This record gives sequence, C-alpha cells and structure tokens, in this order.
Amino acid sequence: MNYKMMGRFIGKILVVEGVFMVPALLISLWKREYASAHAFWWSLVIILGVSGLLMLLCRGSKNKFYAKDGLACVGISWIVMSLLGCLPFCFSGAIPRFIDAFFEIVSGFTTTGASVVPAVEELPMGILYWRSFSHWLGGMGVLVFLLAVSSVGGSDNGFTMHLLRAESPGPNVGKLVPKMKKTAGILYILYILLTVVNIIFLLAGGMSLFEAVCTAFGTAGTGGFGVRNDSIAGYSPYIQNVCTVFMLLFGVNFSCYYLLLIRQFKNVFRDEELRLYLGVVAGSIVLITLNLKGYYETLGETVRHAAFQVASIVTTTGYATTDFDLWPGFSKAILLCLMVIGASAGSTGGGFKCGRALLVLKSLHRSVRQVVHPQKVQAVRVNGHPVGEKILQNTNAYLAAYVIIIGISYLLVSVDGFSITTNISAVMACFNNVGPGFETVGPACNFAAYSTFSKLVLIMDMLAGRLEIFPILILFSRTTWRHR
Amino acid sequence: MNYKMMGRFIGKILVVEGVFMVPALLISLWKREYASAHAFWWSLVIILGVSGLLMLLCRGSKNKFYAKDGLACVGISWIVMSLLGCLPFCFSGAIPRFIDAFFEIVSGFTTTGASVVPAVEELPMGILYWRSFSHWLGGMGVLVFLLAVSSVGGSDNGFTMHLLRAESPGPNVGKLVPKMKKTAGILYILYILLTVVNIIFLLAGGMSLFEAVCTAFGTAGTGGFGVRNDSIAGYSPYIQNVCTVFMLLFGVNFSCYYLLLIRQFKNVFRDEELRLYLGVVAGSIVLITLNLKGYYETLGETVRHAAFQVASIVTTTGYATTDFDLWPGFSKAILLCLMVIGASAGSTGGGFKCGRALLVLKSLHRSVRQVVHPQKVQAVRVNGHPVGEKILQNTNAYLAAYVIIIGISYLLVSVDGFSITTNISAVMACFNNVGPGFETVGPACNFAAYSTFSKLVLIMDMLAGRLEIFPILILFSRTTWRHR
Repeated sequence: MNYKMMGRFIGKILVVEGVFMVPALLISLWKREYASAHAFWWSLVIILGVSGLLMLLCRGSKNKFYAKDGLACVGISWIVMSLLGCLPFCFSGAIPRFIDAFFEIVSGFTTTGASVVPAVEELPMGILYWRSFSHWLGGMGVLVFLLAVSSVGGSDNGFTMHLLRAESPGPNVGKLVPKMKKTAGILYILYILLTVVNIIFLLAGGMSLFEAVCTAFGTAGTGGFGVRNDSIAGYSPYIQNVCTVFMLLFGVNFSCYYLLLIRQFKNVFRDEELRLYLGVVAGSIVLITLNLKGYYETLGETVRHAAFQVASIVTTTGYATTDFDLWPGFSKAILLCLMVIGASAGSTGGGFKCGRALLVLKSLHRSVRQVVHPQKVQAVRVNGHPVGEKILQNTNAYLAAYVIIIGISYLLVSVDGFSITTNISAVMACFNNVGPGFETVGPACNFAAYSTFSKLVLIMDMLAGRLEIFPILILFSRTTWRHR
Repeated sequence: MNYKMMGRFIGKILVVEGVFMVPALLISLWKREYASAHAFWWSLVIILGVSGLLMLLCRGSKNKFYAKDGLACVGISWIVMSLLGCLPFCFSGAIPRFIDAFFEIVSGFTTTGASVVPAVEELPMGILYWRSFSHWLGGMGVLVFLLAVSSVGGSDNGFTMHLLRAESPGPNVGKLVPKMKKTAGILYILYILLTVVNIIFLLAGGMSLFEAVCTAFGTAGTGGFGVRNDSIAGYSPYIQNVCTVFMLLFGVNFSCYYLLLIRQFKNVFRDEELRLYLGVVAGSIVLITLNLKGYYETLGETVRHAAFQVASIVTTTGYATTDFDLWPGFSKAILLCLMVIGASAGSTGGGFKCGRALLVLKSLHRSVRQVVHPQKVQAVRVNGHPVGEKILQNTNAYLAAYVIIIGISYLLVSVDGFSITTNISAVMACFNNVGPGFETVGPACNFAAYSTFSKLVLIMDMLAGRLEIFPILILFSRTTWRHR
C-alpha cells in the first residue's frame, strides 16, 4: 500500500470538508445559535489540524499507485471524513451519542437518509444545513469534486483514474471527454446547475430559501434528510410534484444530460438503461395507483402519492408524503423491489442500479439461449455495442457480493430481536442508500431503536452501498494489508 | 424439438408413476377405504391410458436429442406427472379443488412439503401413503429411477446424459462410474438402503409400520409431509433425534456414501462441500441454542429442538417439533438463511446448495484478490482441483436466475395482500423446497389461504427449485419452441 500518498490525499479531502463546513458555521452565527457555532468552530479546528498533520507526515513518495490503493483510499477517506464530519452533531449536543452522530453523518454522506433523530424540527438551523449538505457533497462524490478543482497526483501514475473508478456509481465509468479532470468538472457543473434550478422551482412554490436549499440538497444527492418531521407530507401538492420530478431527474445517468447538451438526442432516447429506468418508474406508478384504490379521496391524489413514493424509492432518496408502511402488501412489495433495482448508473442514486440489472438480465437471457443453441457464440449487447466478458464477470461478482452482504447483515442486525420485515427492510434501506424501510424503521419511525452493534453493521452497509462494495470489501481482505 | 422422443419418454415416466400407485391402491383396499380405492383405480386407468396413447402416437423418429430437448423434457414430464398424480386427491374427495390437489402433489414430488391440508390425520391412509411416497419418488428423481431400471433411448444420442444432468441437483453431475445407467443404479440402491435403515430405527422407537414408512419417505426425499397434524412434535425425543440424524444424512452428497463404500475415506473427509455443510449445521445449532435461552426447560430439550429445526430447514425437509415462528428474531433469521443455503449438491435436498454457495464464495474471493493483484491469474479450486470457468459462469447465471425468480414471485404473490414476511417466506419455502415459512405460512399453519393465482406461482417456484431452474425457465423462452 502506498500509505504516504494515501495520507496526503486524505489530508486534501479533509480540507474540502473543512471549507464546506464554513457555511454551516456562518449560518449558526447568523441565527445566533452559539452552541452550534462553537461546535462547528472546534470541529473545523480538529479537521484542519488532522489534515495538516497528515500532509506533514506524508510528504515525499512518488511511488506507483495501484488499483487496490485507489479502492482502499476511497474507503478509508469516506470513513475518516465521516468520523470527523459527525463532530458538530456531538459537540453541539444535537445528537449527543457518538455512534448516533456517526450513523447520521454516514447516512448523510452516503445519501441514505436513514435517521436516528425523532424530531428534526427541534435541531438548530446550522446543524440542519450541515446534515442536508452532507447529502449534496456525498451525492456526486467528494473525491470527484477534488478531482474537478485540483490536480491530485498527476495523471501519469493512474491515480486519478483509479479514484474516479472507485467512487463513481455503476458498472463502468464512462469518460465524457478524454481527460478525467474535465469529466469531473462537467459532472459537477451539471450537478450544480440542476440543483439551482431545483431551488428556483421550490422557491416558486412559496418555500423559504433555507428549506428550499436543504430540500434541494436532499433531492440532488438522492439523500432524503428533510427539515420537517413529516418529511414532504406537509408541503403543497405543487412542491411535492416538483420533488417527484427532480428526484427522477437526479436518478438519470448524468452522461445523458451531457449528451443532450452536445445535441446527441438520438443516443439519449435510444439508451437502454434510461428506457428501463423510465419503464420501471411508469409501470410501478400505474400498478401502485391501481392497488391503492380507495386509499385516497381522488385519483389525482392517489397518482401524486404513488408517483412521489415510487420516485423517492427508486432513486433511493427516501422522502415521503405519506406513511407507505400502511399501504397494501402489493404496493409495499413493489417498493421493496424498487429499493433493490435503484437508480441509473452514473446518477447520484444508489441500489443495484438499472444498468447493472440490465446486464444481469441480458447475461441470463444469453445463458438460456446458449442452452438451446450451444454451438452459437453470442455476445451480450447494450445500446448496440457488445459488452466485454470482463464487465459481465464483474457484474456477476457484484451480484454475489450484494446478496452475501445482505444475508450477513440481516443475520447480524437480527440479534436485536426486531421483526423479520423490520430487519430485512432496514438492511435493504441502508445498503441501497434509500433511508426508510418498513415497520419499526418505516417512514414514520427511525433507526434509533437499534443497538450500537447493529448501527455499526448498518453504517458499513451504507458505506458499502454508496461506494459499490469493493472499496469497503477490500478493507476486510488480508491480501490488501500484506506487504509484497 | 424432438417431440416424438419426448412423448415416448413421458409415456414411460407415466408407467413408472402408475406402477408406484399400485401400493397406495392396495393399502386403500386393505383398509377398506373404498372411496380412495376407487380414486386410485380410476387415476391408474387414466395415467396408463395417457401413457399408452403417448407411446402409440409417438412411434418412430430416431433424431438427435439435444440438451434443450433434455431440459424441456424433464420440465414437461414433471408437470404432466403432477397433473395426473393429483387425480387421486381429487377423485377421493380428500382435496376436492383441483388447484389444491395439484399444489399438494407438486409439493410432494418436488419434496417441498408445503401443504394446503389443515388436518392430515383426517385423510384416508391410502391417500396419506401416496402423499408421502411422492416425496420419496421425487427426492432422487423419477427419471433417474427410469434410467436405472431401463435403457431409454440408448447412449449414442446423448439422451441419458442430458436427462440426468437436467434432473440431478447441483452445479455439476459427478459420474460415480463411467456408465450413466450404472451410476443411476448405485444412487438408487444407496437411497433404498438408507431409507430401510431409517425405517428400522423408527420402528425401534415404537412407531407403527405405516407411520415409520411414511415418515421415512418424507425424510429420505427431504420432503416434510407428516402423518400427524403436529408434524413430529408429538413423538418421543428418541424418534425426533432419529429424524434429525437421518435428515442430515439425506442432505449429504450421495457420492460421499459411494466413496465410503469403496473405502476412499480421505476423499470424503477432505470434501470441502461436506465440511461447509457440517460447519453450517453445527454453527447454526450452537447459535440458536444460545439464542433460545429460557425458551425451553432444559438445555437438552433446547439442543434437541434447535438441532431438529436446523436439520429440517437446511436439508429443506420441513418437519417441525416446535412452532419455530415463535422463536426470537435471530433464530428465525438463521433459519431463513439456512433455507437459502440448502443441502449439499447431489443429495435429495433443495435450496441454492452448499456446493454452489462454495463456488460463489470462492469466485467472489478471487474477484477481490484480482483487484489487489490484477496481474496474477488465479484459478478457483475446490478439493484441490481447478474449477472450469464455464462452471463458474453457470453458477453465477444460476444465482442471477435465483434472485430474479424470488423477486418476481414475491411481487406476484403479494397481490393477495398478506404481510411482507409471509410472502417472502412463502416464496423462499416453496422455491427452496422447504415447506413451512413464517407467520401465515408458518409451521403451525398452511398455504390454503393463498389465491389460485398465487398457488400457481408457488407451484412454478417449487418445480423450478426442484429442477434447478433451467428446465422450467426454458419452457418460457421463445427460442425453445421455434423451428430452426
């Protein structure tokens, strides 16, 4: 392992984190929330102190940076970033227990939105801002941001590529333009633009600036932390519909937006992942609307709630306009399946990803055809292009890891003795970065009841889900830490 | 498709089914259960009639028999066999509705043991015998039996091999001896021997001959239909322990017994699948015993119940000595995971199979190692031998199909509106051929409450689970039915 380079890199990440904490400090000062302001101040001092120390200790070393270093580096950065990022929650007394604060910030950075706070309206505004902002930062990735604004390492030693690969969601990283740094920049510009448009639409609906910004952060990162106890239920139908549309927009592969900008409309409309994603969304809304007959007063209201919840769950955001735990079994089954499928690759959403599901389905279809015609050699094609066998292998390995992690996590959190539905949906909601599950962890409840041990398991699930398993998985492998 | 050869083959299968129905008829006559005797008689007439008709219509044709024909043939035979095998239940009035009778016999043949009958003690003895015997016949496979006693097709056109591959459980069919016919014979001799020993042990515990035979059928086939309403709960601890031991024995790969017979002890003790299987069993018993502290009066009783339920679920038998739905969450989570893992490949048990789980785990471990050392080419090894990439690919395709089928089935049965736990565990219990699930389909309840539609879904699940997915899956593929 290239510890020195890793140390320097984590140092830089912490500078970014520190800089992004300043607005929260200013809000606290402006709102005269002195306890929070103190908390942010001392957190900043510690974060920048650790950062400086790391940079100082890890000077020198220009050794080669391997793929495993990239993965491990991403995994460790996210853990360190969370360990320090939760300090304001602790110091301010908003979430006094460290494990709860850690759970909350990991849930924020991983854009999960699973909370241990029963009444968010009681939290100070600075804290609320930091909580929502963590979604925005985690959504596109803090490392991608770093790549966009600075030149880390240089391109010759493969550093940039390995990092971007490790942090970006989806089976393969599509370079929009030949240079990685420029790709990262374009992604962030699109992300900021969409977020700003979202804020404007929310303001037009009469939301206060603060609520609009926080809600847009949660939407853009597909996170789901709200600023009200009833999530989005208390807002007007207009606001709810705006959220539905923007959640869906943030669940689309960002390269589609880039293609639209450079006027390659055909490629966008033919994109098979986009079609699958929109098809799943439309189908789910129709089925749930039919299933919910009689639950709400008008058809319009039913469609609005169905569309909102489908958008919220498939993009793994986790906002709610109604307690969907009270819906009939079939609707809940659809939501549970949507949790697994998740959003598109290359979006800010989590889950298994539509793109990967497409590969698994196509590769299974090929297996069946190969039984029928064993002599024919057939390639799996997506958007007309053959997919490499290596990518198919990796996708299958991903599925295996996905299933095994869900199984083991479910076993471990079951120690707390909650119901089967609670435990399965808690693991699903955390690992797929959704947020709310069913029963004890339903949209009207929270994760506070779980023990410290289970919270640690769920924290690892959230990180593994957001970073697409391998950056966290290899931290548990002996080979990673062995000297060659 | 080679329809003529398929037709002749199904005709032969039906002869076997008819012949095996005779003892049930005799028992009915002996016990003066004339309604059942009539039912068996007319069922026999229909079965042999259909068989004769098929043989007559499908004369001639010596065309090549392809792998897909083998798979489709197995899938269709099992469906036809079940459609006709459930007639005695209907005709006798024991299970008047056809869909229920069909569900019950599919559950029997596939060794699932999920029942729609609330009180089995009220059933006539002939019907009870046929119900239990279906487990025994389905356990080792009716086609394997046919291969063992007659020469179907001849070996030159690949018929035998394709059929045995399609019906045998596990990732790859180990030929015990070079000739397929002889392998099938050895398997059945071992199966009969073990069943007889099981009956003797049960008789020694004071069971009546009838109950001992039926219970042994359910154990040998890892089925789970009992002859008493409370399954095995009412029997003595001795009988319960005998069942535990024999369930575990029937969950072992039968090639291990053959290796023991030819004195290759080392190969048995080094077998990685056997070690995994026994490790999982031992670990689960210990964990559940610890978790059940205070649930039963003595430690001995706790261990007995824990061991029985673990053996019953991991081998996918489904007998019960206690209502494990009342156990704490952690114990239930272990049982749910055991349902998935299942018994060894090459045993009569169902589930994903220990052998396959081993391959998935090792292949995932290789993926992680490959990230760390991308330049090293590493083979996956089981029992010291490298595993072909083709087998690994197939195992991954199997996992994908497995996950997708569970997801879709769960969605479909959710239409009935039962709880999430009920639906998930019903699909798990049927697809893995276990039998009882949790809540509404728990060990103290049954599957009668599901709608006809859901029962059909669960029937397909049971068949797909028993026949290892592909023989049923390719029946749904257009390419299978297309003329070349």
